[in-house]
This record gives sequence, structure tokens and C-alpha cells, in this order.
Amino acid sequence: MTTAAGSWSNRHLLGTEGLRAEDALTVLDTAEVFFEVSKRRVRKAPTLRGKTVINLFFEPSTRTRTSFEIAGKRLSADVINISASTSSVSKGETLLDTVKNLEAMHPDILVVRHAASGAPHYIAQRTHARVVNAGDGTHEHPTQALLDAFTIRRAKGKIAGLTVAICGDLAHSRVARSNAMLLTTLGAHVRFAGPRTLLPPNLDAYPVQTFDRVEPALEGADVVMVLRIQRERLAGALLPSMREYARLFGINASRLGRAKEDAIVMHPGPINRGVEMDGGIADGPRSVILDQVEAGVAVRMAVLYLLSAEPGQAPLS
Amino acid sequence: MTTAAGSWSNRHLLGTEGLRAEDALTVLDTAEVFFEVSKRRVRKAPTLRGKTVINLFFEPSTRTRTSFEIAGKRLSADVINISASTSSVSKGETLLDTVKNLEAMHPDILVVRHAASGAPHYIAQRTHARVVNAGDGTHEHPTQALLDAFTIRRAKGKIAGLTVAICGDLAHSRVARSNAMLLTTLGAHVRFAGPRTLLPPNLDAYPVQTFDRVEPALEGADVVMVLRIQRERLAGALLPSMREYARLFGINASRLGRAKEDAIVMHPGPINRGVEMDGGIADGPRSVILDQVEAGVAVRMAVLYLLSAEPGQAPLS
Amino acid sequence: MTTAAGSWSNRHLLGTEGLRAEDALTVLDTAEVFFEVSKRRVRKAPTLRGKTVINLFFEPSTRTRTSFEIAGKRLSADVINISASTSSVSKGETLLDTVKNLEAMHPDILVVRHAASGAPHYIAQRTHARVVNAGDGTHEHPTQALLDAFTIRRAKGKIAGLTVAICGDLAHSRVARSNAMLLTTLGAHVRFAGPRTLLPPNLDAYPVQTFDRVEPALEGADVVMVLRIQRERLAGALLPSMREYARLFGINASRLGRAKEDAIVMHPGPINRGVEMDGGIADGPRSVILDQVEAGVAVRMAVLYLLSAEPGQAPLS
Repeated sequence: MTTAAGSWSNRHLLGTEGLRAEDALTVLDTAEVFFEVSKRRVRKAPTLRGKTVINLFFEPSTRTRTSFEIAGKRLSADVINISASTSSVSKGETLLDTVKNLEAMHPDILVVRHAASGAPHYIAQRTHARVVNAGDGTHEHPTQALLDAFTIRRAKGKIAGLTVAICGDLAHSRVARSNAMLLTTLGAHVRFAGPRTLLPPNLDAYPVQTFDRVEPALEGADVVMVLRIQRERLAGALLPSMREYARLFGINASRLGRAKEDAIVMHPGPINRGVEMDGGIADGPRSVILDQVEAGVAVRMAVLYLLSAEPGQAPLS
Repeated sequence: MTTAAGSWSNRHLLGTEGLRAEDALTVLDTAEVFFEVSKRRVRKAPTLRGKTVINLFFEPSTRTRTSFEIAGKRLSADVINISASTSSVSKGETLLDTVKNLEAMHPDILVVRHAASGAPHYIAQRTHARVVNAGDGTHEHPTQALLDAFTIRRAKGKIAGLTVAICGDLAHSRVARSNAMLLTTLGAHVRFAGPRTLLPPNLDAYPVQTFDRVEPALEGADVVMVLRIQRERLAGALLPSMREYARLFGINASRLGRAKEDAIVMHPGPINRGVEMDGGIADGPRSVILDQVEAGVAVRMAVLYLLSAEPGQAPLS
Repeated sequence: MTTAAGSWSNRHLLGTEGLRAEDALTVLDTAEVFFEVSKRRVRKAPTLRGKTVINLFFEPSTRTRTSFEIAGKRLSADVINISASTSSVSKGETLLDTVKNLEAMHPDILVVRHAASGAPHYIAQRTHARVVNAGDGTHEHPTQALLDAFTIRRAKGKIAGLTVAICGDLAHSRVARSNAMLLTTLGAHVRFAGPRTLLPPNLDAYPVQTFDRVEPALEGADVVMVLRIQRERLAGALLPSMREYARLFGINASRLGRAKEDAIVMHPGPINRGVEMDGGIADGPRSVILDQVEAGVAVRMAVLYLLSAEPGQAPLS
């Protein structure tokens, strides 16, 4: 589809790996148009009137579901929320049957979150609806990476040439993975920093420079992206303790001093204050954490529009 | 009400027992109009703008709730979902108080699912709102039977004169009951087939021919409707085991060979593949299982329209 | 804002304590306009088209959530429901982070229910969105008091000069507190009646006359407002037993005989029939309990409108 904002050539948005720079930039440019819609007095465009968006969440996530729900409603789509805990899945239905059943109700877009890596791809291959991956296992979370890129571009005026340090539990983070792929495609230099036990096993598949300490990774960085430490990793003995993690890897003022003076700090949320990041940093002048959330609605509006608009349809009509 | 599609004389849709053929056909004919709406680019009609539909589900059912929710939203109604687990019912409120409270908020239609047979009838007698039974205990599930009839008529061009074999747990199935009543009213010959422990106790109340083996029931059938075997029945010792059930009663290619060459296969879902039906049959050329789901949205749009439209209002205006 | 109905000077609606009589009357007068909307064939006004209302419920309450959801939808707002059990709160996020995240999505109004007294005030001080307190701990439930005042004014033609007896668990009731404050502001005489263990500890902060028996409190009352006895109080040993409570404090025909002949009976629901009130009274000619529920939608439409309408915007445009 050729839009006011550029070109777009994908039936689905399943990941940022393999997403062309051109398509990613089309999302970002289109999101700029929608970014203004949420700031108007009337936060609404008729764009997707008569389209049906189903939020199909096999894993709970109020934050992401709410962002997609608001995005869909502001575009005038009919939005249906389905959470797996109350779905037929609990009656032993296969994933394919669940999806085929929904498809028979003629949704335009399925927004899928699933604990299994690859579930959205599996679904996309078997449905006529468009699929958006809203987070699959430890694999990808492409709208998160796109909203991060949108936020970086707004703060820095560009992405190409920037140094982005991603810190924390990289082994289990779909956010890290999607960002590494997208930001590299867009010309940034990406660094990973975290304890050795939390670095991805297949590191050479990532176009990144890796560090097992935070300090050198932050040296001269333009963007410091901090990941959430999940308490369930402690049970797995991958981390000594929250306190130990904070002492060795937590982002505080002293560590942040190694980044560029105008470096920005990002976090996909929810934050464990005092663990992966000091509260003062999260709330400080360099933090763009809430800008990320704001960008999320605009980027998701852009994705919903690009996947389901009619040929030639402008974003706000 | 006289509609473009025929006549309709019911305040509520509580069951198919006693539903006049004329009214059933009005639902089917009206559903044909709405069937096309879901296939349009703009899947929306202004029909129920300003009407309030409450999905009041005392039993969870994502599938049925989603179908009604999409039906309501595509007709531009305001749709409110209430699930009993989070409702005042858990605070000990009586069913009547719950309903009276909702009624005071001026809903137009209450779509009620309840584990107790008769609950929707109880409610209908005590409210000014229109009531749709979305499944009550082992009693009725009229919109399921209507969507099945719609699917049969589309596939076979008629219902009268057809032989329909319904197989499985007939004792506990509201789907079997609603289908037996409706299809008989519409002129079909209905057969029940299942293990003796799973035949209804009051068989003579059903206008059907019964079999305790599947093979003779399928002989020359035009339609094979297979019911879900519910795992909880095993606990009750009504069934030896899932494997045993599949061996003796499961619908496979060999058994299906007894039906007419152009027989269609139906299932209300969710399917236990390999138990009541082979996966290959469910996905095969004779299966109309997904057509049933597709018909569900159209039939529910028709029912919501017939129950709450203004006198003389056309389906799509 | 100056409306067709009067003036309104509040950014938020957090409580009735300190709410000016003038503002309270503006809510009631505006609610009269919206009261008619729910009785029309098309129960819908375009008033809040393009506004986003988030129902942020940290405590479950189907009744109140449904009332706000219907109110928002009938005003054409986009309504998003968030329940704490599925939210990031369960991932250890702070209340402030939850709110800041939602705020970044540009909601117009946050409707907040929370088990902690003061939570909505805390939120209101930290967000640009407008906040409605939908019940906070044992503190306030202002829309309940406003819908009660609306109901009293409709039934009695006035509020000033009336004697209102509020009976039950006054120590833990946000409904009692909000009503005491509002009704006193509007010129009524308020009496509290309940067992000594269930009277508020700081009674002199309330502009009310207190009784530890129901009979004298009802003497000559125009309005008898009965509160729900919560079973969890029994565990706390504040009440001997439900049966004992009913015998000593339950509102029955004999006790009600002490009130004025034309006294009305109110209850915020859900009712424990046979405990705090006889079923016959709840359903009897003096009961306005369902009028309260009906008033709830209208009053909440008025509050949503007053908090988020544009300057000069009329209620139904």
C-alpha cells in the first residue's frame, strides 16, 4: 500500500527481524500523524470504522492491551478483548481451532500475545486476518521496538549513527531482541550489557556488541535502554538476589555518568524501582519512559491503519 | 413486528421449543441480510445505534460471548459484558436483584448464559428488557440451533425432509435439545445416537428416533451433527474413558461412509479432536463447522435486530 | 464552566466533603437532562465523542463499573475497563507508575475505585486527567451520594429541611460518610443509627445526630437509608451474628412505622435480604432502591460531562 506517509508491504507485523527499513520508517512517519490525534480535544478519527480488531491475549498484559484498545477505539474500530484464562483454551481446544473460530467471525486484525515464541507466526500462516505480534515468549515484541524507535527519533532527531546500550535480562527479553534487530536496521549501533547468565545463548545471531558489565557498555551511549528484571528468574538461580543485581548492574547516577551528557533513558515498564534502575533516574530529566508509553498508542494506531486500511485511504479519513 | 424478511412475534428468545416455524424462518431470512454485512469492507450497520445490549454471563463462554459482542457492535449497539465471577452475585445478591438492578439502567436486551436450566425464563418474566437465552444448563441454546439451521439451509438448500443424526452426549446437551425441537419444527427427521448412559432420561419428550449405536443412526443421513464429550462426565462414571468413547462412538471416515455421499458434518465446538470426531473429518471437505461459527454472528445480529428494532425499521437502517 | 444547568468549578470529583451546594445542585440539575436520555428509543448523545474514559478498578464492583460504563457509552465516549487483578499492579508496579502510564495515553477521565482511602486524591494530585472517586476504602463514594440526593429530590421535591436516618455499619461505610456530608450541605438533617461497635470513631467530625438504636433515629424521618452489613465484619467480632443484627437493627415494617407515613426507603445495594432489611420493605411501595440505580447512570453522565465537556458545550450536543 502506498500511503501519505510512504510504502508498506507487509500482511502482518510479526517481528522486526527482516522488517525493511523503509517499512519501519513508514510506521514511524504514519505514527507522527496519529500522535497528534491523541492530543486533540476530539481524540478520534473515522479511519477504521466498520473494522473489527480482536485483542487475543494468552498472557495477561493490561498495559499493552490497553494501548492497543485505545489505539483501535480512537480509529473507530470495533475492539473485542479476549483473555485466554476465560477462553475455550481452558477447555482443551487447540490454538488452531481457537484462531479458525475467530477468523470465521471476520475480524480484520488479530493482536496476539502468547507465552510461546512463534505463536503469532503460526497463526498468521493459517488465517486470512492480519496478525500483530503483541509479544511472543522470549522472541519478539515489534510494536515495542517501533515505539522505542519513534521515541528515540523524536528525542534525538535521528536513529542512524546513535549508540544504544540495552541493559538487563537479555536472554529472556523479546524487547531487547526486537530492538536490536530494528535499531540495527535503522543504522544504530546496539550494545547489550548484563550478567553472563542473562545474555542470550545465541549471541552471534544478534548484530550487537556485548558486555558483561554495565559501565563499559554505557560509555558514550546516546540511549540507555533498561530492561525489567523479572522476579521469576531468581527462582531459576540465574540471579543471586535483587539487591545484588541492583548493586552490580542497576542504573544509577554514577553509572549513567558514563553515557553522553544528553543521553536519554528508556524502560519498557513496569519498572522495579531500586532494582534495575534508581527511581530518581526513572523520574529524572533524561527519562523518556512516559514518552514511550505515549508513543505506544500512536505507533499502534499506525500499525492498525497500515494493516487494514483500504488502498489509497488516508490516515485520518 | 413485520420486517422486510417476514414476521416476528416474540418478546424474548428463550428456546426453540414452541418457536413457530414462521418465526424461525424470519430469523434465518433476516440473518441472510446480516450475513453479507460481515463480509463487507465496512462491517457495520447503524441498526441498533443507541440501544444497550448486556451480555450477562454466569457461566464463562468466550466463544458465545464474542459472537454476541461482535454481533451487537456491528449493529452499532452499546455492548456491556458482565461475567458472574466478578459480579455482585459473589456478594450473595439474588438473581432477581441482579436483574432488577441492571434493568434500572435501561438495557434493551439481556443476553443471558446460566448454569441453571430455566434461569433466562425466570429473568424474562421479571424484566421489561428483552431476553436472549445464550445457554441455560442442560436445557436450551436457541441461537446455536438457529445458526445450525441457517448453516444446513445454506449447504442443502432446504431443511424440510432432511435426515439429521445428532451424536454424542445427548443427556446433557442443550444444543441437542434445541436442535431437535427446531429441526423437527422445520420439517427435518432427527435421530439421536449415543451410549445409553448419555441418552436423555425423558426421551419420549423429544420428537426423535433414538439409537444406542452410531452406525445405524448415520445410515442415509444428510447431516451428521457431533456433540462435544465433556471430560467432567467421566468423573461421573457415565463414560468408560475418552479412548473407549472414541473407539465405539467417535465419528471417523468409516462410520461417516454410512451417511449420504453429500452429507455435511457439524459440531458446535470446541472440538475434542480424536475423541468425538477424527481431526481429518473436522477439517475435511464435508465439514461445515466454521460455517456454523460464521453463521453465528449473522443469526445473532438477526435476533438482536428482531428483538429491539423499532416498528417498521429495516435491518440495515 | 457555566453550563445550561448552572456552574461547576471542580477539576475532579473526589468527595462530597467540601463540595459546594451550588456545584452539587449543578450535578443534580444536569442529571435531570441526562435522565431522559436513557428513556429514549435512541439512548445516546454525542456529548463526549472522542473523549476517553478509563474505569480503573482496584476493587471489583460490577454494579458501579457497569453504571459508569453505560454512562460513558451513552455519551459516545470511548470507555476502557481495567481491573487491578489483571493489571501491572500484580507485577509490583507502584500506583503512581500505573497512573502515569495511563496518563501518557491521554485519557480524559479516570474513574477510580480503590480499597485504600485517599487513593483517588493521591492520583488526582499527580495527573492531568480528571479523576472521579468511585469509592475509596471507608472514605467517600461521591457519585453514590449524588445519586441518592437526586433520588430524594425527585421523590420529595426538595432536600433542605428533610430528616434522613442512615442505619447500619456506619464505621466502615463510605456511602454513609459521603451522604452525611452532601445532605447536610444541601440542608437536610442527618441521623446515624447503628450498634456502638459500628459507629465511626471520629463522630464529632460528622454533622449528624447519632443513635445506638434504630427506633428513635427513625422517629419522624422523611428518608430511611439502610446500609449493607458486610459479612467480613463478623470475622472481626464487631457483630454478634447476622440473625442478631437483623433482630436488633434490621428495618422491618414495625420499625419503619416510626418514620413519617410518606417516608421513602433507600439502600445502595447489594441487599442482604432479611439482615439489614426485610425483603418486603425492599420491594414495597416506599422503596426507591431501583430509582437509585436508575439515577446512578444519569448522575454519572452528568459528572462525566461536567468534568470533560468543552467550555460552553451543552449537555446533549
